[in-house]
Amino acid sequence: MPKLNLDMIEQTNKTGYPPVYAGQVKERWYRRLAPASGLQDFGVSHVTLKPGAWSAQRHWHVGEDEFVVMLSGEAVLVDDNGETPMRAGDCAAFPKNDGNGHCLVNQSDADCVYIAVGRPSETDCHYPDIDMHLDAARGLQCRKDGRPW
Amino acid sequence: MPKLNLDMIEQTNKTGYPPVYAGQVKERWYRRLAPASGLQDFGVSHVTLKPGAWSAQRHWHVGEDEFVVMLSGEAVLVDDNGETPMRAGDCAAFPKNDGNGHCLVNQSDADCVYIAVGRPSETDCHYPDIDMHLDAARGLQCRKDGRPW
Repeated sequence: MPKLNLDMIEQTNKTGYPPVYAGQVKERWYRRLAPASGLQDFGVSHVTLKPGAWSAQRHWHVGEDEFVVMLSGEAVLVDDNGETPMRAGDCAAFPKNDGNGHCLVNQSDADCVYIAVGRPSETDCHYPDIDMHLDAARGLQCRKDGRPW
Repeated sequence: MPKLNLDMIEQTNKTGYPPVYAGQVKERWYRRLAPASGLQDFGVSHVTLKPGAWSAQRHWHVGEDEFVVMLSGEAVLVDDNGETPMRAGDCAAFPKNDGNGHCLVNQSDADCVYIAVGRPSETDCHYPDIDMHLDAARGLQCRKDGRPW
């Protein structure tokens, strides 16, 4: 069936962040819809942010575009422009290599839900606010000086 | 700004369908978000179906995945399984080459809005219900026997 039964798709809060930076995404609960439905051209995540949770540490990808559409609740988009409210129906695009670190933060007291589209990270990812860097060649999150966490 | 101002992005109802099959999509109004926002990895359409409008003639792509998430209103997903209601927050995936022709039909008396994700058609597209076939090599909608419309 093309329509997805979301309740049947595993929901997880796992992260590849080192413990020092993982707290903000602990209550980010997501389902990977592409492997569950046979899509290969792009990835789709169905994400619930509990109150206080972040979508990610603020970041930008060298080689992967990202797109987000809000489904319910409210989040704040944090980027170099400051804070921008995102509500149901709002869309945001993050072109690869734009150098504008971004994340969504649920500052409300209710869950928010969104869809994120992108491709698996095959390039480096930059985190402007913290001592972390995704080294794609080595496939690991390291410090900015290259030492692994 | 990563958040998109949808009102500033051109909305169109244009179609490449021949007139005989274009009536169903006449009130499909869409915005192409990727060119408007600098995304290259995949396409994103923000679509409003007026009452009675179809997303497309029922079809399946040989080489492109598609994904849809409903934002508001209600549509019916029509495919080989029959008719399935789609409401705000519902998601559907259409893996390439699955042979299951699909489309959304707004059978309600109010607009419905959804996001569709996919790549530009570089392969053939099959329409099981009508005498039409997208011949990607020639870049045109033709009859099933290959004659152009």
